[in-house]
Amino acid sequence: MMSVRPILVVAGVGNAAGTGAATARVFSKAGYRVALLARNADSLNNLASQLTKAGGEAHPFALSSYAPQAIRDAFASIRKQWPKEQGNEIRAALWNTAAAVWKPFLEVTDEEVKESLDVNVAAAFAFSREAILEFKNNDLNDLGKRGTLIFTGATASTRGNVTTSAFAVGKFGLRALSQSLAKEFGKENIHVNQAIIDGPILTDRQRARHDATWEADENVRLDPESIAKSYLYLANQDRSALTWELDLRPAHEKW
Amino acid sequence: MMSVRPILVVAGVGNAAGTGAATARVFSKAGYRVALLARNADSLNNLASQLTKAGGEAHPFALSSYAPQAIRDAFASIRKQWPKEQGNEIRAALWNTAAAVWKPFLEVTDEEVKESLDVNVAAAFAFSREAILEFKNNDLNDLGKRGTLIFTGATASTRGNVTTSAFAVGKFGLRALSQSLAKEFGKENIHVNQAIIDGPILTDRQRARHDATWEADENVRLDPESIAKSYLYLANQDRSALTWELDLRPAHEKW
Amino acid sequence: MMSVRPILVVAGVGNAAGTGAATARVFSKAGYRVALLARNADSLNNLASQLTKAGGEAHPFALSSYAPQAIRDAFASIRKQWPKEQGNEIRAALWNTAAAVWKPFLEVTDEEVKESLDVNVAAAFAFSREAILEFKNNDLNDLGKRGTLIFTGATASTRGNVTTSAFAVGKFGLRALSQSLAKEFGKENIHVNQAIIDGPILTDRQRARHDATWEADENVRLDPESIAKSYLYLANQDRSALTWELDLRPAHEKW
Amino acid sequence: MMSVRPILVVAGVGNAAGTGAATARVFSKAGYRVALLARNADSLNNLASQLTKAGGEAHPFALSSYAPQAIRDAFASIRKQWPKEQGNEIRAALWNTAAAVWKPFLEVTDEEVKESLDVNVAAAFAFSREAILEFKNNDLNDLGKRGTLIFTGATASTRGNVTTSAFAVGKFGLRALSQSLAKEFGKENIHVNQAIIDGPILTDRQRARHDATWEADENVRLDPESIAKSYLYLANQDRSALTWELDLRPAHEKW
Repeated sequence: MMSVRPILVVAGVGNAAGTGAATARVFSKAGYRVALLARNADSLNNLASQLTKAGGEAHPFALSSYAPQAIRDAFASIRKQWPKEQGNEIRAALWNTAAAVWKPFLEVTDEEVKESLDVNVAAAFAFSREAILEFKNNDLNDLGKRGTLIFTGATASTRGNVTTSAFAVGKFGLRALSQSLAKEFGKENIHVNQAIIDGPILTDRQRARHDATWEADENVRLDPESIAKSYLYLANQDRSALTWELDLRPAHEKW
Repeated sequence: MMSVRPILVVAGVGNAAGTGAATARVFSKAGYRVALLARNADSLNNLASQLTKAGGEAHPFALSSYAPQAIRDAFASIRKQWPKEQGNEIRAALWNTAAAVWKPFLEVTDEEVKESLDVNVAAAFAFSREAILEFKNNDLNDLGKRGTLIFTGATASTRGNVTTSAFAVGKFGLRALSQSLAKEFGKENIHVNQAIIDGPILTDRQRARHDATWEADENVRLDPESIAKSYLYLANQDRSALTWELDLRPAHEKW
Repeated sequence: MMSVRPILVVAGVGNAAGTGAATARVFSKAGYRVALLARNADSLNNLASQLTKAGGEAHPFALSSYAPQAIRDAFASIRKQWPKEQGNEIRAALWNTAAAVWKPFLEVTDEEVKESLDVNVAAAFAFSREAILEFKNNDLNDLGKRGTLIFTGATASTRGNVTTSAFAVGKFGLRALSQSLAKEFGKENIHVNQAIIDGPILTDRQRARHDATWEADENVRLDPESIAKSYLYLANQDRSALTWELDLRPAHEKW
Repeated sequence: MMSVRPILVVAGVGNAAGTGAATARVFSKAGYRVALLARNADSLNNLASQLTKAGGEAHPFALSSYAPQAIRDAFASIRKQWPKEQGNEIRAALWNTAAAVWKPFLEVTDEEVKESLDVNVAAAFAFSREAILEFKNNDLNDLGKRGTLIFTGATASTRGNVTTSAFAVGKFGLRALSQSLAKEFGKENIHVNQAIIDGPILTDRQRARHDATWEADENVRLDPESIAKSYLYLANQDRSALTWELDLRPAHEKW
């Protein structure tokens, strides 16, 4: 019998310091092959190398853009790299991409609205479609599932605020997609969920904005590794008790 | 002293049987001039005539599309029709347009996703911008407000479901816009709100789907006139007690 | 034919400065007889006199406590005062009572928890029961309704916070009651709703906490009269478009 | 140095087939001592024996009632059984008790309302207080937490419905408590959370209501063991990424 090895597809991998990369590492250690999707080819290559050196198996799939067709092409490339006929099964997919625009409403341009909708929602539609089509071809695994599709949400997924108009339309939209898919495909044992990240994540970008005290204080920022562990936990839930949505925030966050 | 007459701008006027038209009638009777925006010029002309015959003042502004520039052009035409310098003030605006796609996720095309986002969200952004820019130029009225911006929401604004992926991303997105604007512009005494219409509206389209019993039973469908009265009520709230969101449904609706 | 005059029952009337009293005045002007319920007999008597002098008809029904039986006794007294057989119909009821405890969790006593649950929830159950039993005996009015039951909610109805444990359990509980009743009795054309008051109300108690600037600034506090108008609006909604919940807050409130 | 062994306190243990018992087993295997609280002494004794035979350490603490004082007495007994001075630390607590009344509103008695509020809310207050007082005396553990307090929620925690008035007031109230505590004690590194169980749990009571097909179908009911694993996952979250609320439902549940 052909041995099956599960694949995780991650879209939205910045450098090795963020949530996408941490999730790739955590799933890699848990036995998943990892397909890395993002626009920055260099970052992808570096991360793929790191994962491989650490004993995992990962491959970069650089995206020319987040246009639906580019995403479909990437999935076609994944299938070519790791053919289904050889026992490779896409079993998990993480949509971790976001176009974050935070500015007063009257300063938001038509282009920024379009970018938020294209990247946060339309691209997520295309990504979800490819993931779900793959999952539908899988048999039930030991957990009674065909696949797990995870979305990274944010505070702006559930609350609009004074400078969030452009960002929140995308994140609310993504949440609508996530809930609709969870309901539509639950009955086919496809598990769709999302995490509401309600606080700053310890990324290089946030490091640049804060001082060393902030970085050292685990009470005030989310560790990408901890988020990644939540994603693995969600992928490991069995069909009798599936979560659609959970929130994640640092212990001292005000909310 | 120049006498001021308030203007309501309505975007999304089908034929005379829907919510947009009912709102035009109700506000017209309450003393507003009405600017009618939609893509169907004939419907607009007919409704404008009806309103004028009934003693009101209304003008059609046909949209070539719901592209942001087309919406900006329409507002420019309104200003030309009813110059601010002559005491005409846009005091209320209703975004009543929706692109409703209800179908299984895997049948939704890239174009339908784009249409939902363009019409339900991007166009609403452009419309909101023009309305708010107008409101900012107004003085406080007797209610302590510069203007009222109303959005028509739906069940799919707050709940995704099995065939709502394409529609709900647009309606959730619109709700995000509405909440963000309510918070950002409340402090400038601009009142932004939305109604969640949670049931079928008595429109010609719905009439065609149901029999005469349904139409006659006021317990099972929303009357556009009743929705319109809610909108007038919201416009008439004073600054000390403003509503952001209310739900509306027929008495016998299951929810 | 016997002429029918509607009755509003208000529970929770402090002095003449609050929401309960304002609602009594607004409904009185709109043609309702008003039954005033609260624990402070003097306040009730004063308000009843005021309303009567203003041309209305009101009667005080002092409560010995908010125990269920005391509430049932009050309804029995109302029925005796204004017999149904003589064309008097209880058509609206407002539950405006709250036991508000705001303190750190570890300082909350068993008695305070009990008080919050007894007054905010158990008493509301008894009040709702009496109101609904009355409504069920009414015919449909011109709006297609048998009666309207309104609850006064608060920020703590939807969000717990750092000093709200004792208060929020009561207000969340009341919201649960309100939603359950709205769904259970909508099909009998009984309209149940609630307003989420999300900001400070201009009452004597709040006046004492703030300076004159605050009182004069209509942007920062809710006028009880404005809240009362919302309640009348809700009572006047027709059966084709009923609201369960709306929020009310001053224009400059941060939320 | 004294070796520390963590204690889990579980309130609400029916027979060995439910969520409370499953949680006791899962935490026991993970190295926790388990204090079992419930009103049925026989069930507690049986479960304690089972856990001990399986290599764990468990002790029954029968409650005479869910009155606050009875709960405080139980915690005093736990402290006596496993003294803090000997390195025993209460590190996790699960409130799994519920008084479930499902009936038409007009059939609900005063006593049933009181029972729902007493057990679902007032008793949870007392339990939370004891747990939090214990947690405050703990140092931070490896996860940066002093303790984890978990509540078992239900569909009725977030949605009222036609026969839920009495039950939902309790469950909404419990959710308010949970959110208030999460916000108030997060800054002291105490982790408060709750799971919304949105579907039928595979318990003996549910087994009696369904046929064997239902029991065998993992897609339609929640396995207590799976719920218990979620609780362990929550207890194992580190302080950088804490969940307040997650939902759990079977794959084929309609929601």
